[in-house]
Amino acid sequence: MTSTIPVEITEHFDRGELVAAIAQDHLSGDVLMVAWMNREALEQTLATGRVTYWSRSRNELWEKGLTSGHTQKLVSASYDCDGDAILLKVDQIGAACHTGERSCFHRNLDL
Amino acid sequence: MTSTIPVEITEHFDRGELVAAIAQDHLSGDVLMVAWMNREALEQTLATGRVTYWSRSRNELWEKGLTSGHTQKLVSASYDCDGDAILLKVDQIGAACHTGERSCFHRNLDL
Repeated sequence: MTSTIPVEITEHFDRGELVAAIAQDHLSGDVLMVAWMNREALEQTLATGRVTYWSRSRNELWEKGLTSGHTQKLVSASYDCDGDAILLKVDQIGAACHTGERSCFHRNLDL
Repeated sequence: MTSTIPVEITEHFDRGELVAAIAQDHLSGDVLMVAWMNREALEQTLATGRVTYWSRSRNELWEKGLTSGHTQKLVSASYDCDGDAILLKVDQIGAACHTGERSCFHRNLDL
C-alpha cells in the first residue's frame, strides 16, 4: 500500500472515527450519495480506483457496485479542512441509489 | 413554524441523531462544506432561508456567516434515500471555509 493518507484524516481513524465520503459525478457535478469510510475503505479506494465504503449497517467493507454493477470509478479526491470528510469525484456507472435513481438526493424539501 | 420535514429525516432526530448537511454552490456545483444539523437547525434553515448548522464542538446552533459575514442563502434542498443527509444548494457569500478558501475541500488526495 503506497498511497499516502494525510494526517488530518488518519487522526480520525486513530480515534476509531469514520469519515464522511461524498460522491460527486465528475461530469455533471451532481452529488450522488453520502456514505462512510474507515481507514481500510479509503486505502482500498485509493489503491484500486474503485470506490469502497464502510457499511455501518453491515459492519463490513462495501465496494460500491460489486453486486449491482453500479460501480464508481475514482477520478479525483479531496478532503476538507478538518479532515473528517472526503469528496470523491467519480465516474458513476448506472444508478448510485439503490432505488434506481441516479442520485440518492432525488427528493426535494419544501422551503 | 410551517415547514414540513419528511418523516425519513425526523426519525433520525427522534433518535437523537444528527444528519449530515452538504452545502453546494448553486451556480458552480462546487461542494463547499459538510456540517451537521439537528431538528432546530433544519427548521431554522427552512424558516429563514439562512443556512444554520448544529456545531458539534460548541454544542449550539451555528448560523453560518453570522460573525464572518460569509452567509449561505438557501436556494433549494433535497434529502437522501435514508433521510440522514441533506443537500443544500446555496448562494455562498465569500468563503465557505474558515481558512479563507472558497471551499473546505481545497486539498487533494494523492491517487
